[in-house]
Amino acid sequence: MRQAAQILVVQTPGQGLVEITREVAGWVRDRAIGTGLLTVFCRHTSASLVIQENADPDVRRDLEAWVVQTAPESRAWRHQDEGPDDMPAHLRAVLTGVQLSIPVIDARPALGTWQGIYVFEHRRRPHRREVALHLIGG
Amino acid sequence: MRQAAQILVVQTPGQGLVEITREVAGWVRDRAIGTGLLTVFCRHTSASLVIQENADPDVRRDLEAWVVQTAPESRAWRHQDEGPDDMPAHLRAVLTGVQLSIPVIDARPALGTWQGIYVFEHRRRPHRREVALHLIGG
Amino acid sequence: MRQAAQILVVQTPGQGLVEITREVAGWVRDRAIGTGLLTVFCRHTSASLVIQENADPDVRRDLEAWVVQTAPESRAWRHQDEGPDDMPAHLRAVLTGVQLSIPVIDARPALGTWQGIYVFEHRRRPHRREVALHLIGG
Repeated sequence: MRQAAQILVVQTPGQGLVEITREVAGWVRDRAIGTGLLTVFCRHTSASLVIQENADPDVRRDLEAWVVQTAPESRAWRHQDEGPDDMPAHLRAVLTGVQLSIPVIDARPALGTWQGIYVFEHRRRPHRREVALHLIGG
Repeated sequence: MRQAAQILVVQTPGQGLVEITREVAGWVRDRAIGTGLLTVFCRHTSASLVIQENADPDVRRDLEAWVVQTAPESRAWRHQDEGPDDMPAHLRAVLTGVQLSIPVIDARPALGTWQGIYVFEHRRRPHRREVALHLIGG
Repeated sequence: MRQAAQILVVQTPGQGLVEITREVAGWVRDRAIGTGLLTVFCRHTSASLVIQENADPDVRRDLEAWVVQTAPESRAWRHQDEGPDDMPAHLRAVLTGVQLSIPVIDARPALGTWQGIYVFEHRRRPHRREVALHLIGG
């Protein structure tokens, strides 16, 4: 039984989804662990992680719109230190979650056919985001 | 330290919750691992996993109604490839999540008294769903 | 490779967030595991776990308000066994989630600078909550 951990840096272009499936699956493959558990963890409170369809880009646009509507900028939030997109970004991170654990089978994350892993940037401006990866298995 | 992984197939009868606590706990028990970590992962983007009360069926009905209201069919979603329940199903999967990790103590998932594990089908029609199970421990 | 598991008891003063970062990080440190995976699991269906900003208390107040608005008491829920805050508490637990897995690096949970771990009490009255901790690594 072995394990590995690493920080992956993801540059986001502003609000929206950035796919990281390829980077994450590549990192898993290079660890040469056949069966195990992969954990992906977003080290931020205004960005998050989701698994969603990687085929039709309209799914991502609808998802972005729904998240914005569910935690809108328009309410009078107390916390506005960094502008009107500050507090909604925190709420959207809670709504969508900052962590994913995925079984690894045959040295690959056991994602379904249509599942992709995305960093979800909730701030309007580009950000440098850190994602912690951990893999344990044998 | 040992581990095990398996794909569990769950047939859903259409929209709503399907309890899998018994199957999952039985699989853990048969692995003969006293202390460890169980991960349950739904390999789909229009079905999800939740832990919820397994006593009063009204809790499940209210939960189903709330999820439907929070990500309704009535909005004009761009993505409608498979009908009006297609995009809402994706949103409801994000809202509720596709993965659960549960500590195993005394060879059982350390669920609380009222906690059950459910596959949450978000499409109207019945589906064959795959849930990946992973257990590591000793 | 080693592991540890323990039940942490958290007394909540009623609805709202209770930070447990210090207790959890202290427990990890005392296990003397340099690299690994920490899992925190809430054994209840009317309380949950979130990671959120631990700096400005206004973030917590806005988060509490948003969760209340997103799953309000005002709707006519079927399940009311324990009063009007009963069913909304279940919904808020689903909305925010009951489980977190966090990579451990240098014997510490790899949280970002502003990330704190919170038990989120969704019932109006104080409760005794159990949180299962699991750590595996070496």
